[in-house]
Parts: sequence; C-alpha cells; structure tokens
Amino acid sequence: MNLNVALVGFGNVGRSLAEILLAKQDFLRSEFHAVVRVVGISTGRHGHAIAPSGISLRTALDAVRFGSQLDGLHEGRPVQDTSSFLERCPADLVFESLPTNPIDGQPALDHIRGLLERGVHVVTANKGPVAYGYHELKALADKYQVGFFFEATVMDGAPVIGVGREGLVGTDISEIRGIFNSTTNYILTQMEYENLSFDEAVRMAQEIGIAETDPSLDVDGWDSVLKLVIMSNLLMGIDLRPEDVAREGIQGITLDDILAAIAAGQRIKLVCKSARRPDGSVESIVAPQRLSLNDPFAAVMGTSSVIDYVTDTLPQLTIIENNPSPMTTAYGMFVDMLNIVRGRHVTGSFEPIKHP
Amino acid sequence: MNLNVALVGFGNVGRSLAEILLAKQDFLRSEFHAVVRVVGISTGRHGHAIAPSGISLRTALDAVRFGSQLDGLHEGRPVQDTSSFLERCPADLVFESLPTNPIDGQPALDHIRGLLERGVHVVTANKGPVAYGYHELKALADKYQVGFFFEATVMDGAPVIGVGREGLVGTDISEIRGIFNSTTNYILTQMEYENLSFDEAVRMAQEIGIAETDPSLDVDGWDSVLKLVIMSNLLMGIDLRPEDVAREGIQGITLDDILAAIAAGQRIKLVCKSARRPDGSVESIVAPQRLSLNDPFAAVMGTSSVIDYVTDTLPQLTIIENNPSPMTTAYGMFVDMLNIVRGRHVTGSFEPIKHP
Repeated sequence: MNLNVALVGFGNVGRSLAEILLAKQDFLRSEFHAVVRVVGISTGRHGHAIAPSGISLRTALDAVRFGSQLDGLHEGRPVQDTSSFLERCPADLVFESLPTNPIDGQPALDHIRGLLERGVHVVTANKGPVAYGYHELKALADKYQVGFFFEATVMDGAPVIGVGREGLVGTDISEIRGIFNSTTNYILTQMEYENLSFDEAVRMAQEIGIAETDPSLDVDGWDSVLKLVIMSNLLMGIDLRPEDVAREGIQGITLDDILAAIAAGQRIKLVCKSARRPDGSVESIVAPQRLSLNDPFAAVMGTSSVIDYVTDTLPQLTIIENNPSPMTTAYGMFVDMLNIVRGRHVTGSFEPIKHP
Repeated sequence: MNLNVALVGFGNVGRSLAEILLAKQDFLRSEFHAVVRVVGISTGRHGHAIAPSGISLRTALDAVRFGSQLDGLHEGRPVQDTSSFLERCPADLVFESLPTNPIDGQPALDHIRGLLERGVHVVTANKGPVAYGYHELKALADKYQVGFFFEATVMDGAPVIGVGREGLVGTDISEIRGIFNSTTNYILTQMEYENLSFDEAVRMAQEIGIAETDPSLDVDGWDSVLKLVIMSNLLMGIDLRPEDVAREGIQGITLDDILAAIAAGQRIKLVCKSARRPDGSVESIVAPQRLSLNDPFAAVMGTSSVIDYVTDTLPQLTIIENNPSPMTTAYGMFVDMLNIVRGRHVTGSFEPIKHP
C-alpha cells in the first residue's frame, strides 16, 4: 500500500512529524505494509512544494533549518498560497498543523471542509476548526468515507480522544474535567516554585518558548476553552460552541493568591470542566480553582496535563500526560494516520458466524 | 445484525455483564444496529442453560439470586459440564469469566483454544489463559479471523489494553510500571489508615469481600505477576512466562514498615514493572517498594490502580482507575464485544484514493 501524504504547516509540530515519519519507515512497512510518500509540504515562511514523485523529508528539514525556501523541491508551476497548494497536491491524506485561530477556526476550517469533500483524509493538530466545526466536518468525513482525526488537538499526543472513541465506547460520560493548557500550568508552577509575579512567570515562559509573544490565547483561557469544546462535543453528544463556555483566565492570579492557597493545603489550577445537569444539558466552564493537595490534579505540574472522565460504568478514569514535547504532539498525528491506515474511520462490518 | 453470545462464568462479573447487556440494549440497537441474544449461560453452582431461541437475562439473574438452578431455561438434553456446554452452545461470541488458575491457566486455556479454532470470538476476564497462552491464542484468533480480547484482565474495565492497542500504536514501549492488584493495595491502605497489622487488614478485606478466603493469590503477588505478563507480552513484543517474573508479595510487610516509610515521606506499594535493558531483553519484577509521596503512584489508595507507559514518543503516560467494581470489570468485557462488532480484530483495509 502506498499512502501519499501532504504536510500543511511545517513548524515545530510539522517538522517533528516529519522526523517520526522518517524514523518509523521500516515499522510502517513491516507492520502495516505501508509506504508513506510525502507529495507536498506547505509552510508559512518557506514556501510550498508539490512533487507527485515524492519529496525527501530529510532534504526539506535541512532546507528549513538553514532558512532556505522549499521551492527547489517543487515540481511544476509555482504554488502561490495554501488554497492552491491544497487544490493541486495529489495527497490521500493531509496533515494540517497551521496556527490556531481562536475566533472562528479559519482558514483551516474551509481548507478541511474542501479536503473532506474531495475524499481526502484529514489529520489535524489545529484546535480551531475542530472546536468550531466538529459536527459538520465529521458528517462530511462519514459521507465521503474518509478519516477526520484530531488526537493532537487535546493533551498533545496522549490518547485522550482515542480513549473516548475506542476505550469508553458505550459508556455514558457525565463529566469531563481537565487541566488542558500547558502554558498556564507552567506559569502557575513557576510562580509557586520560584516565587515569581504573574508577569515575571509569563516572561520566563516566553524566554524558553513555552508562551507566545502574545500570551493571551493561553492566559485568557481561550486555548482551554477550545480543547474543552472539542472533548465535550466528541464525548458528551452535545453541540457546544466556544462562546457558550464560561471563561476566566489566570491573568488575575497573584503570587499572594498562590501562596495563600498553598498555606491552606491547596493549589491553584486552571481547570476545564463539562458536567451534565439533571435536565440532560451540559454546563461548561474554564476557570482557576483552588484544589486540595490530595486531588491528583494538584500534582500535575509544569507543562504536564490531565483529564478525568466520569462515566456510568467506570466511576473515574484519569489520564496524565507528563512532560510533552512537539514530538508528542506529532506522535498524536502519526497515530491518527495509522488509525486511518487500519480503517478505524469505517464502522466495522460484523458477520455472524455460520454454525453447521 | 444479530449477535449470539454465551456467558461462561456467572459470578459477580458475569452477572454485572448481564446487567450491562440489559441496560445497553437500546444503545446497541441504535448505535450499532446490533441485537445481542444470549443463547447460553454456564455457571459454577447453578448449572448450565442453552437456548438457541434466547435466554431472558432478567430471569437468569433472578434465578441465581434466589439460589435456583438455570435448568428451567435450558432447551434439549441436559448439559453435564463446561466442555460439553461450549461444544453445544451456538454462540458467535463467548464471554469467559471463570476463576483464574494461576498455575497454568487451565481449563480456560483449553476452552478458549477450542472456541477460537471453531471460529468463535472470545472475550475473557480471566488472567490465567492470557498470561499462559497469549501468543498462541492470538495467532489462532488471527488464523480464524475472530476476536480474542481481554481488556477486563488488567485494571478491570479501564482501557489500559485498548490504549496499548489503539492509542500507543507505533510507539516503542520501553517500560510499563503499575499497581495492578486491588486487594494488596487495599490491605496496605488499611494498615496505614487504621493502624492494623497485616493479618488484621487481610481479615478486614475478607470480611467485605475484597480478599478471598485464601488470599495467597493476591498477597503473594501472583495476581500482579499474571497481569504484568499480560501487559508485557502484548505491548513489549516479548514472550514472558509467569515463572520468569521476579516475585515478592506483601506478606512480610509489617505495620512498623508502613509507619517507618510514612515517617520518611514514603509509602509502600506493591509495584509491577517491566523495563527493557540496553541489550533489548526485558526485566520484569513484582515487589513491594517504598515510593516517594511525590510519586503519583503513592496517591493511588484503596482498590484503585494505576499504570505508567514510557515510550519513545510519549515520555510518560499515566492512567489511574479509581474505585472500580465488578460493574467496571464487566464493562471491559462489553467494550471488547463492541470492538468485535466494529471489526477491530480485523486489520483495516486501506484503499488509496483515486485522483482524477
């Protein structure tokens, strides 16, 4: 089996994915009889390349590392933008890892819609289109019998979406609770450990590349909201919009707040929670909370993250992801690809046994 | 789709599974277009019943609750034993939850072998046959294109096996560490919380039904060994036998040991661990260990359990199952059935897209 793929977005995550695809070539051939050929790479600052005969990932990685454009790897007339790249790239599966637009998920939402309608599998690490368009995009994927997977959007590559889809199938999930944003958890951790003010901790996070130049997407709680929306829509059968979530960020948390909490045997965390009300509707909130130090969530420090599922048959299942990296996120995309290769997007066809 | 199933073993787990099958009937019909018909129940003390036209689970549950035999539900000539039950029962899928034999996995190992060879799907909660026969049974299941699933054997219904099979596909798992045995974890917890001797805590666990009359399978570490063998063989690509695992139980732990550990900021847990050595081989051990109170494992108390996976792409993934019950274990079997219904036992057939 030859699988032609394209990478749209070639930042930390896209490049880590390229490294994984290189490292796992033999595994893919031996375990899945799959040869993955990269036929296109679309970047933000290094141009676009389409080559139906295949692009050397090692060459592309080297080019970007040395600040070059990818044009030398391109075959045919030049590609002007991502839209025309997607129209012309002969990929069976597109990996999308563009920066998240927290307002409406665009332009990735339109890109993904177009790909699914043309029968192309989509694997995305981009929260925007999934938070704003999950139900529509899932219906399109089902209609065109292709995969639409997004494990890497929540808790990086930890299989928290896969667990919902595979491991918790048939349960009634009444509550999801999580610490989903690494940047704010890192900031709160540094404030406590290093006795820093909020602003000092943000600067520290920026210096080591954990916070963006404009950290508002994280500290205002938007990133957490998008992730909570993704999980709630997927696992609780609702149609939640980001604007429906009660949201409070951590920008009002002072060092005094942190120390007062610790003195009281508590720790402040930015907690995401969706819980079903008795009438069947779901209440969703993102806000800082003081948690008892006995709460396992209180022990999740730095860039680690955590999720709790409360279900009718499993009282409480907790998944903790420790010390992720861009490689971890990229691995989530790799697993999505393997699940498409294994046909996980198609409902299995069960044949009862013929008894003699 | 009509799925004919049989239950072999009708203790706490088998009866909880019956309750789930009753409760989820509508779900199965609406989501999976599946009608599950129970065509046989084989019990240890309440006889056997085979009825190709279907057995009322409610009636069977009531009969057992009132101490009756299931013979009234049986059609045809009487069934003498489990072997003849399995030969005559017209099931597409057999749920097996017989008591675990820690010595060689028999007779369940032979039962399962026979079922798979006849093209019958098998879902088991019984650790013995999986610990002693995984590779052989998996090869048989593949040969006859049927499912052989056993989520309920480790950490009850928590999807720790599903995560390995689905969520961690393509990773290289270098270490598995866990607290897998509820009984010993409960005993150690009670010793600490209630200042009990080992013997007093065992008696308490027996009184509330958490420990067996003969608690040696748990306290000697055998149950933990079987579970570690199951996980290691499935996820680390080895052929480990229970006798290969270095094993130490908790019977030598005194209240003084417990209190001394706490005074040192530590807690004693019965830890299972398989770790790959530099030469590629795997070292497996089950033994009590003093863990720092900062270790998330130290916070897993009572009958809860935990697993850590260390992989090449996910630095450390932790799954905690809180407060399980027989219903939780039964749910693991239910998920296995759904995965068979969804064709998860068949490697997906991927068709590259035809580009115009």
